[in-house]
Amino acid sequence: MAPFAIGVDLGGTNLRISAVDSSGNLLEKLTTGTQVTRGRDFVIQEMCDAIKSVSFHLQDKGILCGVGIGVPGIINKRTGMLRKSPNLPDWHDYPVKEEIERRLQAPVILENDANAAALGENWLGAARDVDDMCIVTLGTGVGGGIVLRGDVWDGMTGMAGELGHITIDPNGPKCNCGNSGCVEQFASATGVVRMAKEAIASGAEELSKLASGRDVEFSAKSIFNLALQGDEPAKAIFRKVGWALGILMADLVNTFNFQMYVVGGGVSNSWEAFAPMMFEEARKRSMVYAATAPETGAEPVGAAEGMSQRPAPKSQQTIITRALLGSDAGLYGAARLPFLRAERAKNASHL
Amino acid sequence: MAPFAIGVDLGGTNLRISAVDSSGNLLEKLTTGTQVTRGRDFVIQEMCDAIKSVSFHLQDKGILCGVGIGVPGIINKRTGMLRKSPNLPDWHDYPVKEEIERRLQAPVILENDANAAALGENWLGAARDVDDMCIVTLGTGVGGGIVLRGDVWDGMTGMAGELGHITIDPNGPKCNCGNSGCVEQFASATGVVRMAKEAIASGAEELSKLASGRDVEFSAKSIFNLALQGDEPAKAIFRKVGWALGILMADLVNTFNFQMYVVGGGVSNSWEAFAPMMFEEARKRSMVYAATAPETGAEPVGAAEGMSQRPAPKSQQTIITRALLGSDAGLYGAARLPFLRAERAKNASHL
Repeated sequence: MAPFAIGVDLGGTNLRISAVDSSGNLLEKLTTGTQVTRGRDFVIQEMCDAIKSVSFHLQDKGILCGVGIGVPGIINKRTGMLRKSPNLPDWHDYPVKEEIERRLQAPVILENDANAAALGENWLGAARDVDDMCIVTLGTGVGGGIVLRGDVWDGMTGMAGELGHITIDPNGPKCNCGNSGCVEQFASATGVVRMAKEAIASGAEELSKLASGRDVEFSAKSIFNLALQGDEPAKAIFRKVGWALGILMADLVNTFNFQMYVVGGGVSNSWEAFAPMMFEEARKRSMVYAATAPETGAEPVGAAEGMSQRPAPKSQQTIITRALLGSDAGLYGAARLPFLRAERAKNASHL
Repeated sequence: MAPFAIGVDLGGTNLRISAVDSSGNLLEKLTTGTQVTRGRDFVIQEMCDAIKSVSFHLQDKGILCGVGIGVPGIINKRTGMLRKSPNLPDWHDYPVKEEIERRLQAPVILENDANAAALGENWLGAARDVDDMCIVTLGTGVGGGIVLRGDVWDGMTGMAGELGHITIDPNGPKCNCGNSGCVEQFASATGVVRMAKEAIASGAEELSKLASGRDVEFSAKSIFNLALQGDEPAKAIFRKVGWALGILMADLVNTFNFQMYVVGGGVSNSWEAFAPMMFEEARKRSMVYAATAPETGAEPVGAAEGMSQRPAPKSQQTIITRALLGSDAGLYGAARLPFLRAERAKNASHL
């Protein structure tokens, strides 16, 4: 019987579960009504019940290889505890991994949600032809994940890849992380809405009804629609998003010299509004990008539908592109984790 | 007979050559009078003659494993050609590696000089207890090098680790690399002298005689001495150096979550003038650093002599420290290259 893994996405508002085989085929997908806001013990119970039901359902078809869980927040990999997770406040300093393993009687791997998304896009998405890549996920905040030689680079304590907190403007708006002017302040849904509010204060009329909603991701989407309709203040906001992302990409290309950089998350759907400025800044600010970028005009700055095709990476060319798997990237990436661990164990035993 | 390697440092003004055994013991060291400014063919001939003489001299003691050469500039590793090297203008698009191999009849590995310095400090210097680290070298410009799992990370085309061109202030001074406000504009000897000139323009008297010299590294050193004597404008310049390096370190810690970050190069001798501000900014701007840094007050901000001891890395602690090998880091790192290649070949044959 073929092995399968279960991937869990605990990010955002709902709990989502998938069963995936080692080639990346989706065997089952479940979105529970479980709201993550209902508290730790409730969520863990529902999650374990759902995982058990999925694996019971597949027991004649395959062998459960393990469970990977993408979690919004910083994880200490050695202890299996969450260090900081604004969306999961009472999960802090709680032995999450141990507790779930105890209930499931199966090996569990926790991973930061953006790291899981990086793995997913590397396994089955935009970056599936390369070994090394990173992703920036533009949601309520900005997450980041780095894949080196096909595996997550998570650093000494599991905190690597916090690319959303790279400094763009040292005197810019204050961030919850302690820094001022980091990427998240300009390129997240929250950043878009903040910039809209600033524009309203200086008289941008059309924006005023959009920036007041409680759902920042929805508001950011509405502001993008306004930009598409030609509203100049809305367009200026996305140029600022592109400016910040261009500086970030220049920093990342200068640092890593990877072949591929992927932009995902809800705000990445506004690609055509920010991508031209992003490419322009990256080219201007990184000699490494300028030396290895596609010719001017060949960068994918067009409308969303054109982007569903994956740009084929050419030899020695740097590609900055959109994510392909949408919100499933983290779900697939989480399922990839147990397979990667099995591969590592196999390679180690061969040495 | 034991193997030895030859390391060459082509950086700066002179040509330096070392013979090193596989444990890092120096067998021979030679500083030729050869001025790198005398042109490509002259330098290559002198270098090959000196390498031949060293290896002939050691022929009864060991077997030459290979030659590593640290070069100031960006190297295309696949072609063995230099892409850009301000100090070696006529070496551009010339088959350097091939030409030297032809003359020596021995395998040659070219590496960027800052990458070689990273390897040297990782092998025998400040970072010798860790597998993953990066270095920033503060000289006339600012170089960078990344070591992952004991080997240089040089990226898709050998251009990774250009940490001197990470953006600090997007509206800052223009750099030759195309970017504005990158690290190099604030933390190089050239940056120190530029800031001194700006301070003179606004009336800093003591600085005026120091900033006009032709040797920027010497001028930067004089400005540091002035800061040590308590001159306020000179002290302010090094606080700005520390500010820029603190932002860079926050970016690097957020990205890599390494255990160790090393600061080398001539300007790093001004450590006590810039380190306090560097640590303060890094702690303020990176939650990852704040979570893993030594306790406040335990960071090595003191005078240079205290720094000759290598801080022992504690488990899960992030250390930002001074380089230990001085200008020899690149020479040892270059000699390490042939040994690393031999190790890789050995590991590959075991799989």
